[in-house]
Amino acid sequence: MTEVSVAPDPAATGADASDEPWSAFRQALLDDGVLLATDVDGIYGRSAAYESVADAIDRLVLRVGADQDALSVRFPPVMPWSTFQKNGYLESFPDQMGSVHTFRGDERLHAELVHRAESGEDRGELLETTDIVLCPAVCHPLYPTQSGRLPEGGRRVEVYGYCFRHEPSTDPFRMQAFRQHDYVFLGTPDGARDHRDRWIDRGLEVLGGLGLEVEAVIANDPFFGRPGRMLAANQRTEELKYEIVAPVFASGRPTAISSSNCHLDHFSRPFGIDTADGAVAHTACFGFGVDRITLALLDRHGTDPAAWPDTVRSVLWP
Amino acid sequence: MTEVSVAPDPAATGADASDEPWSAFRQALLDDGVLLATDVDGIYGRSAAYESVADAIDRLVLRVGADQDALSVRFPPVMPWSTFQKNGYLESFPDQMGSVHTFRGDERLHAELVHRAESGEDRGELLETTDIVLCPAVCHPLYPTQSGRLPEGGRRVEVYGYCFRHEPSTDPFRMQAFRQHDYVFLGTPDGARDHRDRWIDRGLEVLGGLGLEVEAVIANDPFFGRPGRMLAANQRTEELKYEIVAPVFASGRPTAISSSNCHLDHFSRPFGIDTADGAVAHTACFGFGVDRITLALLDRHGTDPAAWPDTVRSVLWP
Repeated sequence: MTEVSVAPDPAATGADASDEPWSAFRQALLDDGVLLATDVDGIYGRSAAYESVADAIDRLVLRVGADQDALSVRFPPVMPWSTFQKNGYLESFPDQMGSVHTFRGDERLHAELVHRAESGEDRGELLETTDIVLCPAVCHPLYPTQSGRLPEGGRRVEVYGYCFRHEPSTDPFRMQAFRQHDYVFLGTPDGARDHRDRWIDRGLEVLGGLGLEVEAVIANDPFFGRPGRMLAANQRTEELKYEIVAPVFASGRPTAISSSNCHLDHFSRPFGIDTADGAVAHTACFGFGVDRITLALLDRHGTDPAAWPDTVRSVLWP
Repeated sequence: MTEVSVAPDPAATGADASDEPWSAFRQALLDDGVLLATDVDGIYGRSAAYESVADAIDRLVLRVGADQDALSVRFPPVMPWSTFQKNGYLESFPDQMGSVHTFRGDERLHAELVHRAESGEDRGELLETTDIVLCPAVCHPLYPTQSGRLPEGGRRVEVYGYCFRHEPSTDPFRMQAFRQHDYVFLGTPDGARDHRDRWIDRGLEVLGGLGLEVEAVIANDPFFGRPGRMLAANQRTEELKYEIVAPVFASGRPTAISSSNCHLDHFSRPFGIDTADGAVAHTACFGFGVDRITLALLDRHGTDPAAWPDTVRSVLWP
C-alpha cells in the first residue's frame, strides 16, 4: 500500500483557498493553463506540458528500474470490491473510498432519479451498489493475481496507473485522482526490507537529480478512528513506512512525493502468496507519486517545463 | 459522446461463458497471460505485451492526427457529477453509470459497515454520495472547459484516457473499464460534419492498414427506456453516429472498434460554447477504441504480438 501523506492539512471543499500556503502556486497552474479546473476540488484536466513531464517521469522510472527484471502489469482505475474488502482497506481507510454505484431501476424510478438530481436532492437512495470500487493504490489489484508459490528469490513487479482517494482539497498536491508508479517485491521478509531500503536510496538519488531537495522521513498512513491511531503509531515504531519529501510553496512545506512501505504479510496472507519454501511471503513496494513529482518540479522550476534548467531537462528528456 | 456498441449481446455476469462466441478467444487471452482475470467480469489486468500494443495504437493515432493542430488535454478517469448531469448522460444512460460513493460516518457506523461487508450484506445504505462519477466517455470532461467563444475555424482537441460503463460481460470486447482516444471538433455545424466524415475515412484507412477487415456502419447508442428507443431511431435516421466494425471470433461477429458522432448542440448548449460568430457551436468527435482495437488485433493476428505479420508490426512500431 502506498499511502502518500502531507503535513497537517486544513483544506476542505469550498474553503476559501486564497490564504492557503498553496494559493499562489495553484493560481499560477490555472492561469498558465497547466491544470484545468473542474467543478470538483482535486479533479483537474492536464495540459500537454503537464503530461509531457508526467510521461517523462514514467519513462525515467522505467529506466531506473531496468535492472529489476520486473514483471510489468497495468490495471484499470477500478478494481473488485472483493479485493478492497479482503486487503483491509475498508477496515483502515473507509473515509477515502470511492465505492461504485449504478442504476438498476425502471423508467418510473429513472424519472424520479432525474427529478431528484435536477432539484438538487440526493441520488444515493435510488442507486445500487456494484462489485466495483475505485483503486486506492496502484499495487492493490496486483496481489490477488499473485496467489500461489513464488519463484526462488521472489518476484518484482512494476505497476503504473491512476488511483483515487476521496479527500477534496484546493491544494493541488492533494488530487483525488492521481498516478503512482510502483516497484513491488514479493518474497522473503529479508528480501522485502532489502527492496524497500534500496529503493529509498534510488528514489533519493533520482529525485535529487531533478533539482529537488529531498529527504527520507519515517511516516504513517492516515488510518481511520481510534484503533487507527494505534496502527499508525505501530507503523512508525516499526519503521514500516518512509516517505520522500520535498519542500514546496514559498512556505517550504515538506510534501511527500514518493513513499516506500513494508507490508509484512498484510497482502500475502489474504491472497495466499507463499515463498518458494512454502512460508507466507512478505511484500514491499516503492511508489513514485508521478503527479506529486510533476507538481514539485513545476513548483521548484516554474510552470513552463521548456524553461527548466538544462540539468533537469536532460534527465527527463535524455 | 463516443458510445461503442456491438451486435446483440446476451452476456451477463455469472453466465456460463463456455458456449459464447468469444469463449475460445477469451480463454486464449487468459491462458497466454495477455489479460489477467479479476473477481469481476470486464475488469482485467493487462500484460506488458497487451500494453505495448495499446501504447503503439496511441502513438499511431497521434501520428495520424498530427496535421490537426489539435489542443491536447488529459483527464483523470473520474469527473464531476455536475458535468454528467448537465450533459444528459444521467437522462440517457443511467444504467451504465458509475456513481462514486464514500463513507462519512463515525467509528460505530464503521464497525457496522465492516460487519455488513463481511457477512455479505449490502453496504450501500451506509455510504454517501460524492460529487464525482466515473467518466463514461473520454471527451465528456472536455466540454465544460470550452465555455465561451471559439476561434474562427473552430477548435480541435485530442483526448485520451480511461472510461467506465457498468455493463458486466464475459466478452473480452465488453470491458467495464477501457480506453478511448478521441479527436473532437468544436465549431460550425458544417465543420462538425466535415470533421466526422474525414475521420471516418482516416479511421478506415488506419485500421485497414493493420490488417483488419473494417467497414463503417450507421449505428445508435443504447439509450435507456422507451423514450430512448425514439432517440436511437432518430440518431439512425439523421445518421449522427457511425461505427467502424471488424469481424471478430471464429464467428465473424462484427464488433465496433471505433466510432464517430455528430453531437449537434448537445454538448455546446449546456456549457455555453459558441462559434466565432456568436452562434451556438456544434461538436463532433471520432474515437479510436484503443482496447477494442488491441483486442481485434489479438483476435486477428494471434495472442503474441511479436509474431504478427511484418506489415502490421511496421505500422505499429515504425
